[in-house]
Amino acid sequence: MNYYSTPIATLIDEFTKLPGIGRKTAQRLAFHVISLPEEEAEKLSGAIISAKKNVKHCNVCTNLTDLDTCSICSDQSRDASAICVVEDPRDVVAMEKTKEFRGYYHVLHGAISPLDGIGPQDIKIKELLGRLGDGVVNEIILATNPNIEGEATAMYISRLLKPMGIKVTRIAHGIPVGGDLEYADEVTLTKALEGRREL
Amino acid sequence: MNYYSTPIATLIDEFTKLPGIGRKTAQRLAFHVISLPEEEAEKLSGAIISAKKNVKHCNVCTNLTDLDTCSICSDQSRDASAICVVEDPRDVVAMEKTKEFRGYYHVLHGAISPLDGIGPQDIKIKELLGRLGDGVVNEIILATNPNIEGEATAMYISRLLKPMGIKVTRIAHGIPVGGDLEYADEVTLTKALEGRREL
Repeated sequence: MNYYSTPIATLIDEFTKLPGIGRKTAQRLAFHVISLPEEEAEKLSGAIISAKKNVKHCNVCTNLTDLDTCSICSDQSRDASAICVVEDPRDVVAMEKTKEFRGYYHVLHGAISPLDGIGPQDIKIKELLGRLGDGVVNEIILATNPNIEGEATAMYISRLLKPMGIKVTRIAHGIPVGGDLEYADEVTLTKALEGRREL
Repeated sequence: MNYYSTPIATLIDEFTKLPGIGRKTAQRLAFHVISLPEEEAEKLSGAIISAKKNVKHCNVCTNLTDLDTCSICSDQSRDASAICVVEDPRDVVAMEKTKEFRGYYHVLHGAISPLDGIGPQDIKIKELLGRLGDGVVNEIILATNPNIEGEATAMYISRLLKPMGIKVTRIAHGIPVGGDLEYADEVTLTKALEGRREL
């Protein structure tokens, strides 16, 4: 039996479909929306449609953008010799926040994962290769996630690019800053040891 | 500096305004919406507008509904002699799920809370009094929340109704079923003792 009237039940169902939103949270969100002034509800609804309609892939780096070429790829002041390869648009934002990297990006939109049926042709590797023909790029920094899929993707790309004479690097794995050695897992600690540097 | 393009940033901002949704969750939701098929995004957006536009207060019990009189108030088979008074539309659903109460409801849409500037005239007490004139109702069950505001509201309503000769009852406070005495707070335990019944 449905205890809510149809528009409320429909809204709760729609919220429940979102990731990480359970039934109780969806109810709270639905009642919040109903209590909003009408223009606020319209702003939320409009933002959903607008983001869905206007956001597409940048024709260079495949990052999400509302422009044909995203603002990073259009920025001529950046260092064209390096491309940082990431899995997800959010990773671009994480990298940009460091303000340390001044090159360009390439977003793969996923990682190779045979168990999930995702092969190299399902992520944007072809588009990456298409950017390397002119000899301007001399370093590819692989910043895929430090998990099995990310490592496999990094390995695959590095094997593709090495014969082309392009320097391929991988971001360092180790103990996070502020982290505690005692609580680090064995794999991370092993990686941290392997990656030790002379002071 | 804004790292996302405008439609994405706007959507993240809109999601952040929802209760219990932080920046990270809002980002995850926004990227999920962008990855949805267009008709799914439209369903979510449409449900928000539809709920906001079509949901109003029932003209009897003030519960949220898309009808003039809600489905519970229109149900002639229920027991007209009892009205259960709750703070919130969600409380009606909670009560209905027990399948124990067959009377009607009244939704106050809040509780008296002088600290928040909410007085008796700000919640739907006047509408409740309007339902009691014809002598059909002979019990009012006060099911406001067991906190300071809910208790104050219950006390206020009971003092209003007692002179009218209507039986006013309050739902029991005590140890929740499946709960552990060891972890019960002192106030709940005191209430449980006060409310003890002979077996």
